[in-house]
Amino acid sequence: MNSNPRVEPELRKDPVLGRWVIIAGERGQRPNPFRRYSTAVPGDDPCPFCPGQEAMTPREVLRYASGGPDGAAADPWSVRVVPNLFPALRIEGNDDKRGEGLYDIMRGIGAHEIVVETPRHNEDPASYPRARMVEVINAYRARMIDLLQDTRFQYVMVFKNHGPAAGASLHHAHSQVIALPITPVRIEMELAGTARYHDYRGRCIYCDILQQELADTRRLVAQNADFVAFTPFASRFPFEVIILPRRHEPFFQTLTPGLTSGMAEILIDVLRRFKLALGDPPFNYVIHTSPPGNRIPDRYHWQVEVIPKLTEVAGFEWGSGFFINPISPEDAARSLRNLEAVMDVPDGHLLANPVP
Amino acid sequence: MNSNPRVEPELRKDPVLGRWVIIAGERGQRPNPFRRYSTAVPGDDPCPFCPGQEAMTPREVLRYASGGPDGAAADPWSVRVVPNLFPALRIEGNDDKRGEGLYDIMRGIGAHEIVVETPRHNEDPASYPRARMVEVINAYRARMIDLLQDTRFQYVMVFKNHGPAAGASLHHAHSQVIALPITPVRIEMELAGTARYHDYRGRCIYCDILQQELADTRRLVAQNADFVAFTPFASRFPFEVIILPRRHEPFFQTLTPGLTSGMAEILIDVLRRFKLALGDPPFNYVIHTSPPGNRIPDRYHWQVEVIPKLTEVAGFEWGSGFFINPISPEDAARSLRNLEAVMDVPDGHLLANPVP
Repeated sequence: MNSNPRVEPELRKDPVLGRWVIIAGERGQRPNPFRRYSTAVPGDDPCPFCPGQEAMTPREVLRYASGGPDGAAADPWSVRVVPNLFPALRIEGNDDKRGEGLYDIMRGIGAHEIVVETPRHNEDPASYPRARMVEVINAYRARMIDLLQDTRFQYVMVFKNHGPAAGASLHHAHSQVIALPITPVRIEMELAGTARYHDYRGRCIYCDILQQELADTRRLVAQNADFVAFTPFASRFPFEVIILPRRHEPFFQTLTPGLTSGMAEILIDVLRRFKLALGDPPFNYVIHTSPPGNRIPDRYHWQVEVIPKLTEVAGFEWGSGFFINPISPEDAARSLRNLEAVMDVPDGHLLANPVP
Repeated sequence: MNSNPRVEPELRKDPVLGRWVIIAGERGQRPNPFRRYSTAVPGDDPCPFCPGQEAMTPREVLRYASGGPDGAAADPWSVRVVPNLFPALRIEGNDDKRGEGLYDIMRGIGAHEIVVETPRHNEDPASYPRARMVEVINAYRARMIDLLQDTRFQYVMVFKNHGPAAGASLHHAHSQVIALPITPVRIEMELAGTARYHDYRGRCIYCDILQQELADTRRLVAQNADFVAFTPFASRFPFEVIILPRRHEPFFQTLTPGLTSGMAEILIDVLRRFKLALGDPPFNYVIHTSPPGNRIPDRYHWQVEVIPKLTEVAGFEWGSGFFINPISPEDAARSLRNLEAVMDVPDGHLLANPVP
């Protein structure tokens, strides 16, 4: 598979925007790097994430025994975490920062791991028993804690791509963990925004948002004792949802067992609402958490961003960072809340009926 | 078509990121607002942009007579600009800025126009005669100058979506002009980045980038007397190209007739290279220019960003603003430069052959 000379991944910084990009030379060799021009492989035959095919992946870094989620002792394991066979970053070495004229560049060090969420090839996250989602979240947390012990890493990102149109190259349910030697620009911007608000008002902006959303109610999607799911006031995408813990806490990895259960419950709930209201759309979720080096952690509040992929992002959005959302977050929240009103709509055609 | 109550578009500001979003209630009623769940309409029957169907569009705001581009006097016109039938913004009224708790909101005032680039339904931008592209660019410039006379508008964005996967909802070649009451966050970031560099080094960063790219040569794609096309050092996407004028100039709309001809030439050249090397990919281009209110115009340098849409943007990118590019800009530039090496590759399968 690697008959070509090995190309080391690089991190390069945009000299105007200050944004780092991974140039991952070898990653182009994975299956279907340009998905637009290839057919999806729904069968994944043989699937490297299925029991019996463990030798197809690099050696696992974490494995949870079976018997937990729904008592299926016949499964050889319930969750596995393995290094990505086509990593965007490499674990070895130092960052070797250097200039190239006016450009900045560093070696693409980091970790890129896959969380295989279930041993069952066709199990759907929207139908997970809560115990399974708890184990998946436990795996996220365990890997984040472990990777952050490596002081070369500034940030660990956990995300999931579901469906080919959302970037998943394999059908078997999995998510990804990436450890980075820099803090992503979006997180930097969130930290700057929360700091501005804190300087001015002396409070966490996300705590204030939570209070306003609970009082307003129009954008609420779901809630339980520990979490609230709502569509953000300035949603970029139709049916975008934020899951915010009620209690102020900057770091995802401090999650207690009780909170993990609540997070599993609300995440499954939101995915099930997407499935019922939108007909099993492709989606992404990303955990946003404070970098370990954040010296004023009071100013951040960890959260999960969940985005169904319903529209193509057009040139306007790429060129401007300015988004046009055709559905108001109030309408989106209403149709996710009132599922009885859409249960009789055929899959994928909710929007043939105008949102009430 | 508008049996529903008329929903006014709104601009809403993300309270953490400071980013404005258009919530365009009525736009959901256009054909295929959720393209993922609908089939494309390649025939567009009847096509509202074809001669004879002029009554299907709102009344035109600009029309160039025929006979120019390639002497086809039989065409009733060569370029038309019309208001978008499904505008994301409304031209009437003031911005009515207000708060809603901790959120900021304003009326969605602005203009949203369509540039119909050709009277011919199937004419392909990569095959335009230069005179046609000159007229298209003249239309961009004329609309930008006209719209900026309205002091409510802070920025005018010109962009093109080509192909359904790049966001085009109609097949007939067209581009779009959007006048905004705010400056898009991406442009704000570019202005901040150019100002930082200018404060430190006393020069335009884009002028310095141009010199470095011309000396380095590895990322050059094409050039003529007035413009240079290259793949940016920190490209987010495979085969992303920037077209930069050689002469420092912050404002696109100052373009002279001589420069317009050079821009038409290099833009057609780049689109033709995409077509030959990548098999007629969907693409977007966006003109980046200085806002009229920019008080230090020496710090900006207008440019065109051209992005073929080859990969899906995944959760990782959305959640982080951090991009993984599987092809280095040097490899991309080489295969766009050396077209003889890819001319025998069947459409859409360049990447079956590894980039040399």
